[in-house]
Amino acid sequence: MSHTVRDKAKLLARVRRMKGQMEAVERSLEAEAPCGDVLQLLASIRGALAGLTGEVIEGHLHEHVVHAENDAERDKAAAELADVLRTYIR
Amino acid sequence: MSHTVRDKAKLLARVRRMKGQMEAVERSLEAEAPCGDVLQLLASIRGALAGLTGEVIEGHLHEHVVHAENDAERDKAAAELADVLRTYIR
Amino acid sequence: MSHTVRDKAKLLARVRRMKGQMEAVERSLEAEAPCGDVLQLLASIRGALAGLTGEVIEGHLHEHVVHAENDAERDKAAAELADVLRTYIR
Amino acid sequence: MSHTVRDKAKLLARVRRMKGQMEAVERSLEAEAPCGDVLQLLASIRGALAGLTGEVIEGHLHEHVVHAENDAERDKAAAELADVLRTYIR
Repeated sequence: MSHTVRDKAKLLARVRRMKGQMEAVERSLEAEAPCGDVLQLLASIRGALAGLTGEVIEGHLHEHVVHAENDAERDKAAAELADVLRTYIR
Repeated sequence: MSHTVRDKAKLLARVRRMKGQMEAVERSLEAEAPCGDVLQLLASIRGALAGLTGEVIEGHLHEHVVHAENDAERDKAAAELADVLRTYIR
Repeated sequence: MSHTVRDKAKLLARVRRMKGQMEAVERSLEAEAPCGDVLQLLASIRGALAGLTGEVIEGHLHEHVVHAENDAERDKAAAELADVLRTYIR
Repeated sequence: MSHTVRDKAKLLARVRRMKGQMEAVERSLEAEAPCGDVLQLLASIRGALAGLTGEVIEGHLHEHVVHAENDAERDKAAAELADVLRTYIR
C-alpha cells in the first residue's frame, strides 16, 4: 500500500488546513486588510506546504525508490523525485 | 491606495488558482493517485506561492517602506518585511 | 557608518568560516571521500550562507532603506534589496 | 567508481570558483564596499552552491540509491539524502 494511501487521512487533513489558510488570504484581500497580514498568511502557507512536501518526498524516497518492487519502478520514482528536487534546489 | 487593494482582482485570481491546485491535491489523495502526481502538484503550488509572495513583498517594500507616509509606518512595514524574510532566508 | 563597516570583524569571521567549509569540501573531493560527507558539508555551507545573507539583508533594510539619508538613497537601496529577494523567493 | 570521483575535476573547479566568490566577499568587506555589492555577491554564491548541491544530490540519488550494490548501501544512501533534503525543504 502506497504511503499516500496509508497516510491518506493525515495528508488530507493537512491539505484542507492549507486550503483554509488560502481562504484566509482570499478574505484578507477581499476585506482590503493590511498588506502585512497578507504577507504573514502567505509565509505560514509556505511553511505548511514545505512540511507536507517534505513528508511526501520522504515517503516517496522510502517506498517507491528504496523499496521499489522492481528496477523499472525504482528508476521511474527516482526520476520523479529528481524533477521535484530541481524546483527546490536552485 | 495600498498595492494589495489596487491589484486586488489580479491577486485574488492568483489565490483562487492556487486554491484550485490545492483542490487537485485533495482529489489526487482521495483517488489514491500515484504519489509522483501529488509531488508534481505540490511543486507547482510552491512555484505559484513564491510568485505571489514575491509580488506582494515587492509591493510592500515599495509602497509601505520606501513611500511610507511617515517614519512610524516605515518602521512598522520594515519590521513586517523582516519577519517574513526570516522564514525565507534560512 | 554602514552596518557592514560597523560589523566588519564579525562578518569577516563568518565569511572566513565559510571559506574553511569550502576548503573542507575541496579536501573531501580530492580525497575521494564518500559522497554523503560532501552532501553534509554542502548543506552546512548553505545554512551558514543563509544566516550571513539574512543578517546583511536586515542591516541593509534597516540602515539603507528605512534610515536612508535621502529619497534617492532609499530608492537605490530598495531596488538592490528587491533584486536579491528575487533570487530567494522563487 | 562514485560520481564524485568520476566528476572530480569538474566538481573541484566549481568549488574553487565558489571559494573565489567568497574571497570577493572578503575583499568587499575589508574594502568597506557598498553593502549592495556584498548582497549581490552573496546571492551569486547561493546560486552556485544550489547548482553544485543539486548536481551532487542527483548523482547520489542515481548512483548510491537507485544503483546501490546492496540493500544496506541503498538504505544508508537514502537516509543521507533525506537528511540533506530536510535542510532544503522547510
